[in-house]
Amino acid sequence: MQLSSPRPYGAQVSLVFMKRIGFEEVQETLAEVLRSLGFAAERAGMCARMFAEATCDGVYTHGVARFPRFVTTVRNGSVDPKAEAECVAHFGALERWDGRRGPGNLNARAAMTRAMELSREHGVGCVALGNTNHWMRGGAYGWQAAEAGLIGICWTNTMPNLPPWGGVEPVIGNNPLVIGVPRAVGPVVLDMAMSQFSYGALEKYRARGEMLPVDGGFDEAGKLTRDPGAIERSWRPLPTGYWKGSGLAVVLDMMAAMMTLGKATHEISNDMLYEAGISQMFVALNPRALGAADRAEQIADGIVASLHGCKPAEAGRPVRYPGEQTLRIREENRRLGLPVDEGLWEQIAGMRAEGSDSER
Amino acid sequence: MQLSSPRPYGAQVSLVFMKRIGFEEVQETLAEVLRSLGFAAERAGMCARMFAEATCDGVYTHGVARFPRFVTTVRNGSVDPKAEAECVAHFGALERWDGRRGPGNLNARAAMTRAMELSREHGVGCVALGNTNHWMRGGAYGWQAAEAGLIGICWTNTMPNLPPWGGVEPVIGNNPLVIGVPRAVGPVVLDMAMSQFSYGALEKYRARGEMLPVDGGFDEAGKLTRDPGAIERSWRPLPTGYWKGSGLAVVLDMMAAMMTLGKATHEISNDMLYEAGISQMFVALNPRALGAADRAEQIADGIVASLHGCKPAEAGRPVRYPGEQTLRIREENRRLGLPVDEGLWEQIAGMRAEGSDSER
Repeated sequence: MQLSSPRPYGAQVSLVFMKRIGFEEVQETLAEVLRSLGFAAERAGMCARMFAEATCDGVYTHGVARFPRFVTTVRNGSVDPKAEAECVAHFGALERWDGRRGPGNLNARAAMTRAMELSREHGVGCVALGNTNHWMRGGAYGWQAAEAGLIGICWTNTMPNLPPWGGVEPVIGNNPLVIGVPRAVGPVVLDMAMSQFSYGALEKYRARGEMLPVDGGFDEAGKLTRDPGAIERSWRPLPTGYWKGSGLAVVLDMMAAMMTLGKATHEISNDMLYEAGISQMFVALNPRALGAADRAEQIADGIVASLHGCKPAEAGRPVRYPGEQTLRIREENRRLGLPVDEGLWEQIAGMRAEGSDSER
Repeated sequence: MQLSSPRPYGAQVSLVFMKRIGFEEVQETLAEVLRSLGFAAERAGMCARMFAEATCDGVYTHGVARFPRFVTTVRNGSVDPKAEAECVAHFGALERWDGRRGPGNLNARAAMTRAMELSREHGVGCVALGNTNHWMRGGAYGWQAAEAGLIGICWTNTMPNLPPWGGVEPVIGNNPLVIGVPRAVGPVVLDMAMSQFSYGALEKYRARGEMLPVDGGFDEAGKLTRDPGAIERSWRPLPTGYWKGSGLAVVLDMMAAMMTLGKATHEISNDMLYEAGISQMFVALNPRALGAADRAEQIADGIVASLHGCKPAEAGRPVRYPGEQTLRIREENRRLGLPVDEGLWEQIAGMRAEGSDSER
């Protein structure tokens, strides 16, 4: 079964899936694996739910498909299933948290939850979360804030995986930036990494024998190219917007590492199974704090209407806002079951026994 | 005289200049024009200084060269020289200000000043400034925060000047985003608009008979092109990073308009002489609030060192961080005088008399 076409924002690409499995069954199966790895029951449930939600919302690369790699990072000690993030310094609306190398999605959720609380108290709130791990689907924290009526802005650094503009070695990260804006009829959520195409996306294009729709990196001769295989060989994917995304990645890393006093990209292992102890920022703005929330809502709707009113480049393909497809995909996957590759599902089901083994 | 090569970050391009004029003479001449237009003496001095500083820092497009257009917007009523921005709502670390259609650079400076004060009180501060005007050089407010030891993040919406990804009509703005990060040896300041090339940059490339270094927009047949003239004819410049910069422009506009309760891009005049009443956001983060400022400083220096240590794509052209050239250019222009086109300078000098006329 071929899922709907790639969304215009974010790195996800269409995949061939074999099976539909109910949301609850997916969550419970993942939670069972996590409990066997040492997660407390409640935390196993939430962590599993976040993987299921990513798949349910159509972010297949960072949902259930990512779970086996996550399990590997728990088993190899990169992720400590028992560690919970805690506040280590605070001043007014600003807090610094130590993620203690706990599960990245649980840590990030806790940090955004606290930034949201701070924004209800102070109008704006900020949590700098250091010593944490990969947050999986970054968009989750934008949705978290926006679904509570708040603006959420967050970013993370990553292992060095991108050459800066003008350089050939991957010394910067693709440092995703997420911005969620509340709307009653469905939030607007941007979730963008600072590389134009992820390595996962390059691999998918190459496997399909397709060229990229736009230049995606340099070939080994240093020429811009749309050939995904040539970019995989050169290890020189393009920063989004060339010098611009490169510069933005640098300042996002700098702010996150300075505010957390944690690791900068160049200090993080470039082995993805040991990409640990990273730095993240969570900022919440409260559009209701100053009153007139209804007016703010109308303003957001007006912007959406202006986008939808724009003459499209291709007839019948209207301009979309970031995250526009999510609620439709979510509803479809809730109704039909989450699309999961059959082999992947067998692998995860098998982990339940393995996990228990590793506990002995 | 040909100035040094274009910087890797920001829209400025090299220009042919005829004359070097001392910083103080430039500032005083501009201030005299502004006083004749109804600016109070102190505000005339500061507004003039900000134009001179933009040129001094090498941002020629938004410095003295921009002054005649600014004067036109004062004369046509878009900018009220006597209006001062004021706080109209506040809640903790968050304030909403009304720019009252005053001079955009003075308003933006006041808003960042207040966000900085709030960040000293609360760790983080945010000022949403609505009903204001073009802030001229956006990087100025990043430098303002960073030179005071604070992180400054600010953005503005603009008139509709960019087609969104998937659309052919300019319904979104190029909404510049500025991030300034403090360092003792010189801040890191990113100043990026959401179009890959400004119309000014396209014009410069065309005038020199050059192609753009990368795709910059669509031609009239809807094909990506490096031909600046073809993009000028189609009015379809590219968002930076294609769908990514388009999405970022949308959420920046949405946040600014919602938090200010002011105009969104689609509500702003697309006549640049009447681009008035726009919406801006100013956020300051205080890296000293939680202690260990020395450590934060070392972290920033480490990131810069990792960039400088990256193998360059072209031998002898090291990777640079955003804003790296600024202090060198500033020093050179302070020492030799500000480079100003001779005809432009005559025009501005002539305004002193005209300005007085308009006061009668």
